[in-house]
Amino acid sequence: MHLVCVGGSDAGISAALRAREVDAGVEVTAVLTDAYPNFSICGIPYYLSGEVGEWRDLAHRSSAELEKAGVKLVTDTTATAIDVAERRLHVRASDGREDSIGYDALVIGTGAVPVRPPLPGLDALGPDDGVHVLHTIGDSRVLADHLARRQPGSALIVGGGYIGLEMAEALTTRGIAVTQAEMRSQVLPTVDPALAALIADELVSHDVDVRTSVTITGIDRAPYEAAGRLRVTGTDGFTLDVDLVLVVVGVRPDTALAGSAGATLAANGAIAVDRRMATNLPHVWAAGDCVQTHHQLLDTPTYLPLGTTAHKQGRIAGENALGGDAYFHGSLGTQVVKVFDLVAARTGLRQEEAAEAGFKPATVAVTADDHKAYYPGATPITIHLTGDTTSGRLLGAQLIGRLGAEIAKRVDVYATAIHAGLGVAQFADLDLSYAPPLGSPWDAVQVAAQAWVRAHRERSA
Amino acid sequence: MHLVCVGGSDAGISAALRAREVDAGVEVTAVLTDAYPNFSICGIPYYLSGEVGEWRDLAHRSSAELEKAGVKLVTDTTATAIDVAERRLHVRASDGREDSIGYDALVIGTGAVPVRPPLPGLDALGPDDGVHVLHTIGDSRVLADHLARRQPGSALIVGGGYIGLEMAEALTTRGIAVTQAEMRSQVLPTVDPALAALIADELVSHDVDVRTSVTITGIDRAPYEAAGRLRVTGTDGFTLDVDLVLVVVGVRPDTALAGSAGATLAANGAIAVDRRMATNLPHVWAAGDCVQTHHQLLDTPTYLPLGTTAHKQGRIAGENALGGDAYFHGSLGTQVVKVFDLVAARTGLRQEEAAEAGFKPATVAVTADDHKAYYPGATPITIHLTGDTTSGRLLGAQLIGRLGAEIAKRVDVYATAIHAGLGVAQFADLDLSYAPPLGSPWDAVQVAAQAWVRAHRERSA
Repeated sequence: MHLVCVGGSDAGISAALRAREVDAGVEVTAVLTDAYPNFSICGIPYYLSGEVGEWRDLAHRSSAELEKAGVKLVTDTTATAIDVAERRLHVRASDGREDSIGYDALVIGTGAVPVRPPLPGLDALGPDDGVHVLHTIGDSRVLADHLARRQPGSALIVGGGYIGLEMAEALTTRGIAVTQAEMRSQVLPTVDPALAALIADELVSHDVDVRTSVTITGIDRAPYEAAGRLRVTGTDGFTLDVDLVLVVVGVRPDTALAGSAGATLAANGAIAVDRRMATNLPHVWAAGDCVQTHHQLLDTPTYLPLGTTAHKQGRIAGENALGGDAYFHGSLGTQVVKVFDLVAARTGLRQEEAAEAGFKPATVAVTADDHKAYYPGATPITIHLTGDTTSGRLLGAQLIGRLGAEIAKRVDVYATAIHAGLGVAQFADLDLSYAPPLGSPWDAVQVAAQAWVRAHRERSA
Repeated sequence: MHLVCVGGSDAGISAALRAREVDAGVEVTAVLTDAYPNFSICGIPYYLSGEVGEWRDLAHRSSAELEKAGVKLVTDTTATAIDVAERRLHVRASDGREDSIGYDALVIGTGAVPVRPPLPGLDALGPDDGVHVLHTIGDSRVLADHLARRQPGSALIVGGGYIGLEMAEALTTRGIAVTQAEMRSQVLPTVDPALAALIADELVSHDVDVRTSVTITGIDRAPYEAAGRLRVTGTDGFTLDVDLVLVVVGVRPDTALAGSAGATLAANGAIAVDRRMATNLPHVWAAGDCVQTHHQLLDTPTYLPLGTTAHKQGRIAGENALGGDAYFHGSLGTQVVKVFDLVAARTGLRQEEAAEAGFKPATVAVTADDHKAYYPGATPITIHLTGDTTSGRLLGAQLIGRLGAEIAKRVDVYATAIHAGLGVAQFADLDLSYAPPLGSPWDAVQVAAQAWVRAHRERSA
């Protein structure tokens, strides 16, 4: 039995390792375009900030560890085609040499590629000119090298999503003056506007110039300036001269390999898979940022490229490629991001998302302290909690609070409850932990739930 | 309708407030022995450490707030008897005046009293001699006054449970040299020995002299010493001269009022109540540290005096006293304690507890980082996870990690999962949050669960 995994990131390597865990006799090969197997691309902002000293530290496991676990690595090699009938993967090494690898089962984990907006200057100018995109370890090494050599004093970050926010913090930490441009009306468009406003305040308080509702329309070399200076223009008269432009406006699934082999692509452009991570092609599975994702609360497939999901799906694909029967229970879109001293998190659906999906949602906004106010250091947590008024079921939660307020694990309590199908009213029954430095007799997650119940169950009952 | 609540702590006040929330027309009176309604007795160690400046800050709500919420307070008044047939509560004020209060429904929230071990000297000597017990706000004011006036340089804490540990930290924080004596073989006997050893290490590293397997047998005035010095003796030749002795060896339910009125007491000495917090006496409910507690995983009633449980049960009693039909879903014994820079937590059952209860448990011990190791500040979390090998159900978890490692909310994820009846294997399906400074693609709670599944499901399957 020979399992071949295409892609050296979370999904591909998770599939490879799970296969070896299930059956130590299986032959497993991972084929990857670059030389960086099993790297944490979520860690890139912390390498670029200087907090992670060495890019190699971003590896979840070293190549030696992977080889020791029985995963044969074929690096610097791009998979160019799949011969589904013959079960062969055609590959081309970075030196141009072509080859093919026979497989019994194939897991496609080709991931995503950064979205490149149709922006004059983005293609004409490149890293050498100070114009960067950021997705791979390779990209980040190029950017790190640029930062070290050119010592830019100012940067424009195009995009105010998770990576854009983390990079605003990273470049600020390096002493670079950051402007952040977001075409939508708020940063972090995945949370409610009132919560995004708290994030924007945090950025501003760290001297990030936040510009929302601005679409960047052009990047060019600045006239009458020292070499390397860039002039960026945008809507509403936006003009800015900066040393560095970083474009991080999201990703799209990398489906070229799968698509050309005849894999069905979903409406959202990602590879269509079933809950066992099987594609429509025989003996071909797919997982991670290249596939559509089942959402636990939605009937329609979604696209949620997240490291956690890629790990889960890869593990399932690896098990099933060997004849297993593992099942992907779906994503809740649970996410968390640190922005300077603030942490924002969400799980499940927001009000409008739930309404669109056919629920009868209601949302409350509640603020409660992370621990008893009399103990030093208590800070407020703002929670938006969404429940279904018909069934009483918890549908989603968004939280923002200070670093140290256990926001990440509080959103996990909500995520666990949603997974289990708990009703909002059941939060009053949860036996949660309490000590004055660490919580309250009714934890903030319960205070929000009780407010929802008071507003939307008891008064209508 | 007149609801009378006996007791001014968590259970009694929760009942009073819930009644007013359900029906703003109901007359509610709370009768309390002291003058401190609605105080957080869990906060006492932080007042005595000096971290909470004023004992008044420990109030969850002020008397004025309670009165504004419609709760009439009768302070410094002890309930002496219940005339069940006439629905009258007999009371005696601190000035000796006797009276009676008619009620339509009564909630008993008399709480607990500290256990006084049969220890020569404990009754003969008192606070003035430097011998203290600690349970009420009154006790803590006496001790605080003693600490301020006498400035003891050394203290013996008898008892190594939650309060004993918090007081070891509190007195150490004040610069007092602390010896901690625990009759059992480990501090924090509510967690596994290996985890308690980590707590003991933390105490020792803060210069607390930890003496386990030592039973204190006598306290006396020290001979040939300055006034106020005490000599304490114990088993195994234990002898210690100290300035202060604090006895904190647990609590027992205060059931004198209920028992003399004919309330059934459970085998564990607490007031027997049903899941609606009703006693066997008509129109009499009871809640909090004075009642037996339903455990979600055990068939037999337990005694788990916890603030969180008292709040829940009080709320239920208050609602049902007005004709409601609220239901106590039970405790999991979820607890957390901060000991210097360490946090220890547990929920559900440990191996031996689960075995005694008839499960076929297995437990794994796992260590996983709180967040990605490459991001600064990652610290290990030690987890003992117990599952039922027959059903695969999660039964319990114990966690220890550094302050800041989100231990409190991680135990809450387990508590939520146990409440929902999740299997250990389902942890791999939970969509938990991840960002490198705040977690891992597989969170520590999932790493422990996966280890359990590998050890106890996949190999036996």
